[in-house]
Amino acid sequence: MALETSETYLTNVGKEMYKWASDLFPLNRSITGQGNRESLEYLKKLLPDLKINNFKSGEQVFDWTIPDEWHIDEGYIEDKYGNKIIDFKTNNLHVLGYSEPVDTWLTLDELNNFLYSLPEQPNAIPYLTSYYKRRWGFCLTHEQRLSLKNMKYHAVIKSTLFKGQLDYGELIIQGLQREEVLLSTYICHPSMANNELSGMVLTAALAQFLSSMKSNRYTYRILFIPETIGSIAYLSHNWQYLKKYIIAGFVITCVGDNNNYSFLPSRTGDTYADKIAKFVLNNYVKEYKEYSFLERGSDERQYCTPLIDLPVVSIMRSKYGTYPEYHTSLDNLNFISPLGLSNALKIYIKIIQVLENNYIYKPKIFCEPQLGKRGLYNTSSNDNPIDIVNLLAYLDGKNDLIDLSRLINVDFFEIVNYINALVKENLINSVNE
Amino acid sequence: MALETSETYLTNVGKEMYKWASDLFPLNRSITGQGNRESLEYLKKLLPDLKINNFKSGEQVFDWTIPDEWHIDEGYIEDKYGNKIIDFKTNNLHVLGYSEPVDTWLTLDELNNFLYSLPEQPNAIPYLTSYYKRRWGFCLTHEQRLSLKNMKYHAVIKSTLFKGQLDYGELIIQGLQREEVLLSTYICHPSMANNELSGMVLTAALAQFLSSMKSNRYTYRILFIPETIGSIAYLSHNWQYLKKYIIAGFVITCVGDNNNYSFLPSRTGDTYADKIAKFVLNNYVKEYKEYSFLERGSDERQYCTPLIDLPVVSIMRSKYGTYPEYHTSLDNLNFISPLGLSNALKIYIKIIQVLENNYIYKPKIFCEPQLGKRGLYNTSSNDNPIDIVNLLAYLDGKNDLIDLSRLINVDFFEIVNYINALVKENLINSVNE
Amino acid sequence: MALETSETYLTNVGKEMYKWASDLFPLNRSITGQGNRESLEYLKKLLPDLKINNFKSGEQVFDWTIPDEWHIDEGYIEDKYGNKIIDFKTNNLHVLGYSEPVDTWLTLDELNNFLYSLPEQPNAIPYLTSYYKRRWGFCLTHEQRLSLKNMKYHAVIKSTLFKGQLDYGELIIQGLQREEVLLSTYICHPSMANNELSGMVLTAALAQFLSSMKSNRYTYRILFIPETIGSIAYLSHNWQYLKKYIIAGFVITCVGDNNNYSFLPSRTGDTYADKIAKFVLNNYVKEYKEYSFLERGSDERQYCTPLIDLPVVSIMRSKYGTYPEYHTSLDNLNFISPLGLSNALKIYIKIIQVLENNYIYKPKIFCEPQLGKRGLYNTSSNDNPIDIVNLLAYLDGKNDLIDLSRLINVDFFEIVNYINALVKENLINSVNE
Repeated sequence: MALETSETYLTNVGKEMYKWASDLFPLNRSITGQGNRESLEYLKKLLPDLKINNFKSGEQVFDWTIPDEWHIDEGYIEDKYGNKIIDFKTNNLHVLGYSEPVDTWLTLDELNNFLYSLPEQPNAIPYLTSYYKRRWGFCLTHEQRLSLKNMKYHAVIKSTLFKGQLDYGELIIQGLQREEVLLSTYICHPSMANNELSGMVLTAALAQFLSSMKSNRYTYRILFIPETIGSIAYLSHNWQYLKKYIIAGFVITCVGDNNNYSFLPSRTGDTYADKIAKFVLNNYVKEYKEYSFLERGSDERQYCTPLIDLPVVSIMRSKYGTYPEYHTSLDNLNFISPLGLSNALKIYIKIIQVLENNYIYKPKIFCEPQLGKRGLYNTSSNDNPIDIVNLLAYLDGKNDLIDLSRLINVDFFEIVNYINALVKENLINSVNE
Repeated sequence: MALETSETYLTNVGKEMYKWASDLFPLNRSITGQGNRESLEYLKKLLPDLKINNFKSGEQVFDWTIPDEWHIDEGYIEDKYGNKIIDFKTNNLHVLGYSEPVDTWLTLDELNNFLYSLPEQPNAIPYLTSYYKRRWGFCLTHEQRLSLKNMKYHAVIKSTLFKGQLDYGELIIQGLQREEVLLSTYICHPSMANNELSGMVLTAALAQFLSSMKSNRYTYRILFIPETIGSIAYLSHNWQYLKKYIIAGFVITCVGDNNNYSFLPSRTGDTYADKIAKFVLNNYVKEYKEYSFLERGSDERQYCTPLIDLPVVSIMRSKYGTYPEYHTSLDNLNFISPLGLSNALKIYIKIIQVLENNYIYKPKIFCEPQLGKRGLYNTSSNDNPIDIVNLLAYLDGKNDLIDLSRLINVDFFEIVNYINALVKENLINSVNE
Repeated sequence: MALETSETYLTNVGKEMYKWASDLFPLNRSITGQGNRESLEYLKKLLPDLKINNFKSGEQVFDWTIPDEWHIDEGYIEDKYGNKIIDFKTNNLHVLGYSEPVDTWLTLDELNNFLYSLPEQPNAIPYLTSYYKRRWGFCLTHEQRLSLKNMKYHAVIKSTLFKGQLDYGELIIQGLQREEVLLSTYICHPSMANNELSGMVLTAALAQFLSSMKSNRYTYRILFIPETIGSIAYLSHNWQYLKKYIIAGFVITCVGDNNNYSFLPSRTGDTYADKIAKFVLNNYVKEYKEYSFLERGSDERQYCTPLIDLPVVSIMRSKYGTYPEYHTSLDNLNFISPLGLSNALKIYIKIIQVLENNYIYKPKIFCEPQLGKRGLYNTSSNDNPIDIVNLLAYLDGKNDLIDLSRLINVDFFEIVNYINALVKENLINSVNE
């Protein structure tokens, strides 16, 4: 695999990702429904090998049941003059997700029981859902709410809930080894950009990158799946295999803004995924904030549960729940950027490159080899070719390349170069050989 | 068992403990003798199941021999006019413990060889003993010593040393499990309040508390026993059983004043008793001082010796040896108080409650359970019922409730409530089931 | 063995070591050659049991080949007037080590290609070698170089390279145990005092000290051997035995100046040698600097390679490479002193004494022994013979004397005294008995 990812490549793929996000933005995703299928079809155009699968409504998945599919045709509030003052068609956040159907006239006082707004963010429409309790409601800016006059209003939601399916996408890129790396992103939020479209488009670009590799060591399992119920359903079918073969997993979300990075560790904080992620963050980003697992909020909640216990972490830019635009209409296409996306992609590519190259080597000869006669450094005794000598000192069949980089303070990819030279000279070999 | 110990209960038991200490104060305890038997008889009235046992003088116990029993009828110094200037009857600290008999006239110079006082604490009578070397002596305030005039004095001690016995009390409160908790306090000091009466009365109150529990998980072994020779003798008979079944032990002493708490760890500092004690202190007292095991001074000296190696610690208020009144007549009933005693009892009751409830649980289902449908939190997706979710994340069949409390920053007894709800919902069970 | 090494002894041996260094100074050592044999013969006079062995040129030793032996008769530069402006006879650093023969006239410009000097240390002749690449060259002070006039010069080196041998000295002092302590110093530098003569003479004095011991626990393997190629050759013949029996090893070098101490840990930093060395340095020198293994530069490079992995460290005064005189003519007999040598010897003797006495003991009786009846402290209950009691608390069959010294904050050799008393009283015994 090429270790270099040129700036040109990154600039171009940044623009592409942003374009994909713009295309996907208007679709009305939820944990089920037509918007999800349209989103997956769009992704399949980018990733021809993507398999689109589903679970049927009513299927029991661990402690949960696959919900009925939700479909909405219309959702609006008219004033007594027939003006549609709130309309799902203008912004799909206006209707509380999974709202039951309604067609009724109410006074403003009565209506207020079904309205949701954010006094502290008066120009944002909040994003709300009620998947498991049957209710209906409308979300609007607080500014608009304050402007509502005392009159009768007509609230209409034409929605249906029926035995349907929960859709998801799965792409397996076979590697030389059966051990797997999990890349998981979610597809259940309507028109919001950083949480969640940034995750979908970066994962798609990363999948394209992986597919373009000539050969890859690990098998990559890439999921586009609704949060929580989706990952639970998927785990209920696959957990035994995953528990056996997943060596590291990443929940990819909130990767579209251009702020500092965030790291959410696994439950135990000491898995191989934690090691890889922290190494890459420590070495290749300027600054990052490490959160506690107590602050988690996405599918690592399921992947890391005690009986499943996969080594899954999350690298984000601004973490969900920490920026004011989160879960509102202000998390829109202005909040993310091509540069934000491509910088985050660069880090995820580093993750892949470190994973793919992080072997353990052992010496084939005793004592220091004579590097001079092999041209590995020049022969005068007052030179100090200390890096390769230090590398050989700690290359002991136990330290992997990350350990070696830390121990001798030399960049990982420089070590890869040394390793290649030493393997070529038959001085070391991988412990797996 | 009830987790609550009401303020009323604590206030009342504080007064009772202080009353008991006042009753026991005048008795002339030593490592053997009538004062010890009277003290144990008093305790038996409070604890009907208390067994009063003894070891016979001359019995070999490990490297030691049970000493002869010491009895003293009189001990005084008369001046040449026949005035009793020092009299054992007015304060039993006046005679060096285990003094041999004497009846002799001495000059002040000669007498001074047998007098003990504290120049730096001129109004305190020091407490001294000589158990293993035959001597005699009188202890007095330095003020009185300075006032002694140059004349002949008549020193009289009518004491006997004879083959008798060393007495101790033992109370076993049977639990559902054979594993035991050791509570050990000592009964070998004459009229001093914090060191040692506070330990005796708090242990008695704690034993009453334990006896009143409907059912207890652990078996409690409660000892009222002379320090050092008593615990050595007891261990010589019971060490194999104790080594097998004691999971945590506490030396209860110096718990009557109302100052900050002190913690004396076990020899290794990492036993279950250390874990329990430090957790309770960290969570339920404002401030405490942790001492080194090198600063120990009571029966943990024996319980923690390498070949015995019991998990024994000590939680005190002002530690022995650190307050100026220690081992003098100033460690009297004014130095302790009902409130000091009841606050310390509250902490020891917390210790018991944490011990009794500190099980390890594991999940019965995969992934997060659907808490909403069980009413464990409400169903709207923008609530944050984070505590119970975090609890489930770390409830993995390895962490006990103390670990969980630390990991998720939630009070131990709140976790007990969650656990009860989760067990009731059949979502988790104890690893021992 | 005597634990005391009197000041008189140290003063005398300091003067002796300095005398030996002065005698050895003029000899032209290299990795092979007559100078090495003369040096070893000198050492044999001090250490009659020293065995002088060799490896033959051309022998393959791991990745290396024993080089041909280098002999030099003359080496000088004449100016056009026939003045010898640089002459090997006046200082053997003047000729680049292992220079090939030459006899040629050159212009100053041409000559400059073969001259080596240090602009930043204008009055020092640098020390340079070229063991494996055939070249020739002269080293001189920068001052002299700047004074050279533009004329023709006659460069003459009469040297030969032939199938000879690489010589080394080996002294084995048999101990009661088969386990070994390795003391290794090198003999391949021409006229320089701290690096390396200080190592040779201190090791010789330490060997005399060891030989004079009545009985020693460990077997001592003492090597006087050329750096790198010498230790590689030695390891190629002995590594399996050494890997099995060496419990601690020390590379002795740069021990002649009187500056603060330096410590170079083993590769892993956690071997028994590290433990011993750090304990002695922490307790018996005022100040020392701990280097990283990455800063190593002598035979620990070979001893600690992954497949050999001996527990070898180095205690120095000013570490090689850190003082400006290093590897120049200024590292001469003025840089070292009798006091510098004897202070360093004192530390190495402490190392030996700690090694020899660092047993693990366990108690023979349960609970605390009655120390009073054995006169191990006096019998009044208000004494505080805390050290011996604390010692017994931690003397548990696992802690060695170093651990005990750290745990109870008592000097190692005081603990040895307590241990002797306790063994005599039959209260403890060694875990090996």
